Amino acid sequence: MKQVRDYDVEKLMVATVASHTALQLLRAAKKTGFRTAAICLTDNKPFYEKFGFIDEIYTAAVDTLDKLAPKLAERNTVFIPHGSFVEYCGPKKAQSFKVPFFGTRQLIEVEADQRRKMMLLREAGIPTPEEYSSPEEAEPPVIIKLAGAKGGAGYFLAFTKQELEAKTRNLNQPYIIQRYIIGVGVYMHYFASQMFRRVEVFGADTRYETNVDGRVFGLAEPSFVVVGNRPLVIRESLLPRYMRFGEQFASAVEDTLGTPMIGPFCLETIITDKFEIKCFEFSGRIVAGTNVYMGTGSPYSVLYFDKPMDMGERIAHELKVAAEKNCLEKITS
Amino acid sequence: MKQVRDYDVEKLMVATVASHTALQLLRAAKKTGFRTAAICLTDNKPFYEKFGFIDEIYTAAVDTLDKLAPKLAERNTVFIPHGSFVEYCGPKKAQSFKVPFFGTRQLIEVEADQRRKMMLLREAGIPTPEEYSSPEEAEPPVIIKLAGAKGGAGYFLAFTKQELEAKTRNLNQPYIIQRYIIGVGVYMHYFASQMFRRVEVFGADTRYETNVDGRVFGLAEPSFVVVGNRPLVIRESLLPRYMRFGEQFASAVEDTLGTPMIGPFCLETIITDKFEIKCFEFSGRIVAGTNVYMGTGSPYSVLYFDKPMDMGERIAHELKVAAEKNCLEKITS
Amino acid sequence: MKQVRDYDVEKLMVATVASHTALQLLRAAKKTGFRTAAICLTDNKPFYEKFGFIDEIYTAAVDTLDKLAPKLAERNTVFIPHGSFVEYCGPKKAQSFKVPFFGTRQLIEVEADQRRKMMLLREAGIPTPEEYSSPEEAEPPVIIKLAGAKGGAGYFLAFTKQELEAKTRNLNQPYIIQRYIIGVGVYMHYFASQMFRRVEVFGADTRYETNVDGRVFGLAEPSFVVVGNRPLVIRESLLPRYMRFGEQFASAVEDTLGTPMIGPFCLETIITDKFEIKCFEFSGRIVAGTNVYMGTGSPYSVLYFDKPMDMGERIAHELKVAAEKNCLEKITS
Repeated sequence: MKQVRDYDVEKLMVATVASHTALQLLRAAKKTGFRTAAICLTDNKPFYEKFGFIDEIYTAAVDTLDKLAPKLAERNTVFIPHGSFVEYCGPKKAQSFKVPFFGTRQLIEVEADQRRKMMLLREAGIPTPEEYSSPEEAEPPVIIKLAGAKGGAGYFLAFTKQELEAKTRNLNQPYIIQRYIIGVGVYMHYFASQMFRRVEVFGADTRYETNVDGRVFGLAEPSFVVVGNRPLVIRESLLPRYMRFGEQFASAVEDTLGTPMIGPFCLETIITDKFEIKCFEFSGRIVAGTNVYMGTGSPYSVLYFDKPMDMGERIAHELKVAAEKNCLEKITS
Repeated sequence: MKQVRDYDVEKLMVATVASHTALQLLRAAKKTGFRTAAICLTDNKPFYEKFGFIDEIYTAAVDTLDKLAPKLAERNTVFIPHGSFVEYCGPKKAQSFKVPFFGTRQLIEVEADQRRKMMLLREAGIPTPEEYSSPEEAEPPVIIKLAGAKGGAGYFLAFTKQELEAKTRNLNQPYIIQRYIIGVGVYMHYFASQMFRRVEVFGADTRYETNVDGRVFGLAEPSFVVVGNRPLVIRESLLPRYMRFGEQFASAVEDTLGTPMIGPFCLETIITDKFEIKCFEFSGRIVAGTNVYMGTGSPYSVLYFDKPMDMGERIAHELKVAAEKNCLEKITS
Repeated sequence: MKQVRDYDVEKLMVATVASHTALQLLRAAKKTGFRTAAICLTDNKPFYEKFGFIDEIYTAAVDTLDKLAPKLAERNTVFIPHGSFVEYCGPKKAQSFKVPFFGTRQLIEVEADQRRKMMLLREAGIPTPEEYSSPEEAEPPVIIKLAGAKGGAGYFLAFTKQELEAKTRNLNQPYIIQRYIIGVGVYMHYFASQMFRRVEVFGADTRYETNVDGRVFGLAEPSFVVVGNRPLVIRESLLPRYMRFGEQFASAVEDTLGTPMIGPFCLETIITDKFEIKCFEFSGRIVAGTNVYMGTGSPYSVLYFDKPMDMGERIAHELKVAAEKNCLEKITS
């Protein structure tokens, strides 16, 4: 198959799966001068056809996605993976999709395994919530996370030993138990730039979750299902610490996986009322929370560039710089 | 009186009632090249006089508003109706205000009647909360909405049969009872464009309500009085469904009223933790929630245009295109 | 020491303490054409060194800050005070820092004294929560504020007489007791412009506080520690009143202190479900909540200017106009 070093950099195409952050990514790519393609794995083609900035639309089933790879590579495609792509295909198939990725491919399998995921954070020296090896040793309040949990579903809380025991007794799938940190959630977006040799802090969001952000009045259990995102800025006095965590994360990826951190990632944290920051999860690629800045750009993006950028624009800019320098292999994997 | 077909399109004036979204609307109109007028129905003239983008300020009482109509029409005015205009005048007077409206005039009376309002949504095939014809058949939790409810006031909840009975027993005004949907609120803004022949998804907000979004600590009953709005983006995987709902709404308006949907509208929805979307209300014109994007533009507006637009700018753009094509009658009623 | 009237207006430098809103302020200053300096009072120099828009970085201890003053003045520096500067130095040292301030210097000591602070608001005719002179006369729910409270820490609630008594019995530092207003918080940002002779309404935010905005589930007491901010717009029908309050505040400052209100300030309010606005605090300078608009600009800034501005840009613009008119002394103190 055609390799990235053989790509015609004048004719690059940016592709992604049509969901998650596809609109943000493809709009920015088109505006920056690239051809764009959306890959529809569900029946949402009619929706994506509405938008003039999408040049090509491919429909595929999860099973037939592989067959698309040579065609995309032939058309000089850089593929941008995101959470929905991984969710639709499963981590194995996602990681082995044979089109050059903008991003660090190997992180997909790390993320799919809750234990490896948390271990990477600890190796980066980023504070994480205490983890318990069994319900017996756990000290509630705790949160139980099923291995395949996604988008907030598959997480549940236990406030007492009894509740924890009752909720885990008949669980026949792998899970981890973390101390439930009391505080407020901050989802911090970063961009690891190989072209500018730095980690940039990009923006932050909070998740909008049912049934915790609605007017529930005790009528339902909390369910943590994410339906949207809202913009947030944090105290500037906390930013240096977040900056270090971002840099430490990128270093730990390189040290552990032997391959650099490329592009967007997110540290999912809780800040306590003692200003402790605990990271309970990460995303090794673009998060949907970046959509809050689509088109208008994020507050922190102006720390690095003249104009506010959204994450799609930041990625497209990195691609453009790499294409101009003829070093696409540095930002793909 | 002067009709829109006799208007001098070089000298159009955009007018609205000075409240709600007037600043957003008039600023954008002025910037786009139109003359602008604010109609003050309350004693807020000194406030609106501060802003350079308002060319003319009229003061009127609700009773004398009619007399203003010929003068405004003479000056080639397109009037943009909004919720405060309807609230101040009452739906009857609002609907019969004899100046060309940007928007679908007939929707005002539909909206004023909770039953017709919900019926239109059902005719559009948009899922709505179950409705009960009497307190006896209702299954709490439910929300009771008085006919004249506005801005959240006049809504109350009942969690049990007893509570429902107690709260409705002495109610001597019309009301409807809807199942109270547990989830998170999403107010989705749309723009029905006659010039581009499409329904555009524009943005979303959440309402900021007292006493539910404050730090109430059980000291007061929830009151749902809207004091402001906050920006929101939703999961991209939910957008195609919202898009269809918007298109179905516009079609249902045309089918039911025999006149096209023109300009901004809003579907007021709850998303449950099963990703069901239930629409509990609509607004047939610009909602105050669009103010969150004033000046900076909304995330979804860039899906259609090069630069982010706020709803005022979107309306002004539509007016400009219609004026250039000399077909103002297509976007007024 | 060099006075502002002797400054070389072609070579102005804008400086602030490196925290709070320093990134917003210095980025905007640089973009507007000024030299910029960050003063690091904590060990955060490595963070601020990352940003190209900061020309000079000074490190100082609180004790040695004074020594920096002549050097800064020599370099034609206008210093922008903010909450972290006051917090780090203490109000006395902050107020006497001998570099020209953009802002009203005397407000620092007013704010440091909860009683003088509330008195200024009352003199401005702005509604404030009822205040009680002793726990005995107080009618809960109340909020108790320690004299040195900052960033939300040092505030606590009492819902009953008993709770109030228990919580104040052994308090051996000064405090005030205010009626706890039930409603939603609105932090309204203003800009008092000497150059344009007006008070501008700029934007609003809500605070993001632990442990009240997180998913606490009754596991911890509310703690009101601010970790971030989120954007907000309020109903336009409330804006004229907020506008008047802003103007009344600026007048009261001038009447009371004999010196004009200069630059940004904030009224910290609660809106009740009767649409009463109660102001429970003010900030006599830029608040961290303005960071929500960094780079993209605030919704209300476009009411006065062609393009959205953030507060840093608004300040830089005022400085530029004053420098061009050679009247820096009008906007410094």
